[in-house]
Amino acid sequence: MTPLGTTPRPPYFAVVFTSLRAEDDEEGYGAAAERMLELAAAQPGYFGVESVRGADGVGITVSYWESLEAIRLWRRHLEHVAVQEQGRAKWYSSYRLRVCRVEYDNAFA
Amino acid sequence: MTPLGTTPRPPYFAVVFTSLRAEDDEEGYGAAAERMLELAAAQPGYFGVESVRGADGVGITVSYWESLEAIRLWRRHLEHVAVQEQGRAKWYSSYRLRVCRVEYDNAFA
Repeated sequence: MTPLGTTPRPPYFAVVFTSLRAEDDEEGYGAAAERMLELAAAQPGYFGVESVRGADGVGITVSYWESLEAIRLWRRHLEHVAVQEQGRAKWYSSYRLRVCRVEYDNAFA
Repeated sequence: MTPLGTTPRPPYFAVVFTSLRAEDDEEGYGAAAERMLELAAAQPGYFGVESVRGADGVGITVSYWESLEAIRLWRRHLEHVAVQEQGRAKWYSSYRLRVCRVEYDNAFA
């Protein structure tokens, strides 16, 4: 088995979130990150997630969705919005968020 | 400064490559990965890259491009094609490659 996401045939949508952690509040950050993965997975139109954080503090999380509307609703989820504010206030020194339409894909194993 | 990519206003394109490393040939893999980053950066229409590999062997690399045509040319670059074959033969136990159009984005810091 693989920790990589399984997604349907394109087109579908991806949110690419790349970030650099501030070295602060590891415990609070970890709990919030785990809760957000759990909450995202319960949203309508959610297909899956792939997430990595390296030793240098750079992280990339890609979540997959059925539609731009599903992404819009997730980004505006009240608990998520509160966590986004904490992210800017203390957990991230910088981030980029890119909302994408997956045009084509392929997989190995 | 940030290790995160700087990209122009959308639309532009992203290649999201998520992979699980086979525990094999660390040295050969590292050299090839470094060479591919260098070679990609020299391609026409290349905008940047963000890349992380975690301790669990899962890696995510996102590269940014001006057009689908620029991505097509990079995927068919002869040296890159040879490395792709080695990747399937020994470096990855699985991977997913998704070619995306970035619809909108935002940045913090």
